Amino acid sequence: MVRNTQVAAETNAPPITDILARFVAGHASRGWSDAVEREAQRTFYNWLGCAIGAAHHEAADAALAAVKMLEPAPQASVLGRAERVDMASAALINGIASHTFDFDDTHLKTIIHPTGPVASAVLALAEQRGASGRDAVDALVLGIDVACRIGNVMYPDHYDRGWHITGSTGMLGAAAGCARLLRLDTARTAMALGIAASQPVGLREQFGTMTKPFHPGAAARAGLMSALLAHHGFTASPRALEAPRGFVQVVSDKRAWHEVTDELGTRFEISFNTYKPFACGIVIHPSIDACVQLRERGIAPGQVARIELRVHPLVLELTGKKEPRDGLGAKFSVYHGCAAGLIFGRAGEAEFADAIVNRPDVVALRRKVEATADSGVDEAGADVTAVLADGQRVHLRIEHAIGSLQRPLSDAQLDAKFAALVEPVLGAAKAGAIAEKCRALGALPDVHELIAMCRP
Amino acid sequence: MVRNTQVAAETNAPPITDILARFVAGHASRGWSDAVEREAQRTFYNWLGCAIGAAHHEAADAALAAVKMLEPAPQASVLGRAERVDMASAALINGIASHTFDFDDTHLKTIIHPTGPVASAVLALAEQRGASGRDAVDALVLGIDVACRIGNVMYPDHYDRGWHITGSTGMLGAAAGCARLLRLDTARTAMALGIAASQPVGLREQFGTMTKPFHPGAAARAGLMSALLAHHGFTASPRALEAPRGFVQVVSDKRAWHEVTDELGTRFEISFNTYKPFACGIVIHPSIDACVQLRERGIAPGQVARIELRVHPLVLELTGKKEPRDGLGAKFSVYHGCAAGLIFGRAGEAEFADAIVNRPDVVALRRKVEATADSGVDEAGADVTAVLADGQRVHLRIEHAIGSLQRPLSDAQLDAKFAALVEPVLGAAKAGAIAEKCRALGALPDVHELIAMCRP
Repeated sequence: MVRNTQVAAETNAPPITDILARFVAGHASRGWSDAVEREAQRTFYNWLGCAIGAAHHEAADAALAAVKMLEPAPQASVLGRAERVDMASAALINGIASHTFDFDDTHLKTIIHPTGPVASAVLALAEQRGASGRDAVDALVLGIDVACRIGNVMYPDHYDRGWHITGSTGMLGAAAGCARLLRLDTARTAMALGIAASQPVGLREQFGTMTKPFHPGAAARAGLMSALLAHHGFTASPRALEAPRGFVQVVSDKRAWHEVTDELGTRFEISFNTYKPFACGIVIHPSIDACVQLRERGIAPGQVARIELRVHPLVLELTGKKEPRDGLGAKFSVYHGCAAGLIFGRAGEAEFADAIVNRPDVVALRRKVEATADSGVDEAGADVTAVLADGQRVHLRIEHAIGSLQRPLSDAQLDAKFAALVEPVLGAAKAGAIAEKCRALGALPDVHELIAMCRP
Repeated sequence: MVRNTQVAAETNAPPITDILARFVAGHASRGWSDAVEREAQRTFYNWLGCAIGAAHHEAADAALAAVKMLEPAPQASVLGRAERVDMASAALINGIASHTFDFDDTHLKTIIHPTGPVASAVLALAEQRGASGRDAVDALVLGIDVACRIGNVMYPDHYDRGWHITGSTGMLGAAAGCARLLRLDTARTAMALGIAASQPVGLREQFGTMTKPFHPGAAARAGLMSALLAHHGFTASPRALEAPRGFVQVVSDKRAWHEVTDELGTRFEISFNTYKPFACGIVIHPSIDACVQLRERGIAPGQVARIELRVHPLVLELTGKKEPRDGLGAKFSVYHGCAAGLIFGRAGEAEFADAIVNRPDVVALRRKVEATADSGVDEAGADVTAVLADGQRVHLRIEHAIGSLQRPLSDAQLDAKFAALVEPVLGAAKAGAIAEKCRALGALPDVHELIAMCRP
């Protein structure tokens, strides 16, 4: 699920981000020759003429019509908050928030987290239009299908070269979903996909920063805007995805075109979507799962002398942090994950709070975890033995962790996850009512009745 | 200046844009199994919990604070029009408009059109903040330097693989310019560049559609938003540009890092910017230039029996359309370019109007142009002989066309270009007054006095 095969990557490049930042922030005002200053004036003047000259071109008309659909703000809700903003901004912010805990969902074939880009865009547009739940669900299924199929075409090469595939296919899913919701015809839907194709978002280098969740948010906004532009007649190449200088060929050397057409309309990629049971990278999940199961067998932390953990070498490479100092560090610590699983029986966002990570019993237990790299254990599995104080050994082998396609979260488990996330923000009563509405989503006459509950 | 060397491009890919558009637009509502429908509901529900759960995370706070800076709209002007919109939308639309005629400017080392992304973002932000002309010029110079230096690092490989380099470096220039205007410190400027690095815009496949000018517009908006986000503490990788899975390495195999640091702060890339004298692709410019010069020598269209034109083979490959039917087609016709040059002495947007392209004298003259591919003529030159009805031959060889670095547009020629663009939109009096303000740009206490004149 994670590779390090990018060809010819340079690890010793100079720090040009910092160099340019210093230059931009620190260079003296007018710190250049008169010739440069003159060229600056001419450059601006020339540009201004071009901008004014085309002010009434049909491209400007279409773009302005699309932008005007954003006004007057506020028109769409920031989920879980009182603020309402324009729908493009709502798509951005809800997309960011939904991926912030790295707790959302995973299309395992491509490791795309598909719902952030698609649902954030679709729900914001649905709110603005007062769309039905049925229309929103249709848009969601079709949008996710488009994003994940394009992901299937390009994965793993596209991901290996450094794209955060969630944002670099998500704009297509968001555009597709919003085009559907706007009831665009085939030609305009192709334009929406084409406009979106020019706007992939996301680099893997951003992992560990806020720009990681920014990727699905920006993809949602880009896809929504692409659909609005197409709605107003904005044009793109009708071969934007497949042409030699189109999206797929520019960003991937793997181009398995048949992944678009195979069983299109009969096999839906949303069927291969999974929901994260634990608020951390998926490689730790089997180890946490094993410790949760130990707890369910009645083993208490106080009984444990040590935990012998055997995992695929990649797990320790990615999440081998022995002494995390805070929640962010703990997300890269299989040791903390095991401790949380055995002590709390779960590892949601709350179990990655800084205070929990530093609680003495948690620290003590994670230090009892002895992890060994073993390439005989699959990346998706874990081999755990609890050695108790009395010498007893309890062994568990996980082949497929909870949350995998083979062991999907039950509805009850999904309910528990939802409640743990939403109750601290909106309270138990609202959390329960929203869950109810979600179960009937496809039958809601208007998504407003759901969205209104998502504000405090 | 134009290559066709992309490795392993596939020209026979299936039409997946159209296939997916048909699917999204045409698939029946709920045209799937109950299992798919259930997964759609679970997918949405899971996503909603994640979004609400992180509603008060600092990433959501920072993004919302940035978005709130866009309100209340209207806060920035659409140049040449009465409408005012939020500044991000103004950056988008002014960026689109300024590149719509393909008449703006060119950094010849990289064929980046740098001002669209940078000035569109900087001016919109400057208007919102009431910035001085001095601050706007500083932001423009530094922003263009960043975009073009990153272009120098990657050109030509990045362009050859299919990126429209104007939009795929422009977001960095826009972010740099806006960070400067916001007076961000080095650390936050690095964050602005980092956030922007995740958002390259533009595929060459879009050439000939509205999405081509959309690229600088979307890059302007992305860069502006990146600076606003950084201003509010949003984080990105401090090595987003240079890391193995950072921007440059993901989108280019050429990585001439020294192009960032060579003479940084002493050599400014804006010095290598050129302004288009003719509203069409740059390969036709030498031929038009030659015909304008023939006219200046007193040769009238009626005297001409034929025009013998010798050009580099690429010119005919790209612009060999003999009988264009409209203005868009004429932009790809060196024949029309020659006719316009000889008849009108110029080839601005007006000379590419449909009515002009079909005017009998224009049609008659372009049919007298006999073009021959000759690899002995440079791509930047043209060899033209007017054979007159009396048998006289007038020969001209253009080594560097008007508008090149060797023969830059004079201020008077730039004035004429500006007037031709702006007078039809705002009238002669305003066009003259704006030109005056542009000449004093660096000394304006507040850009408002310039921008106010740009509205009808």
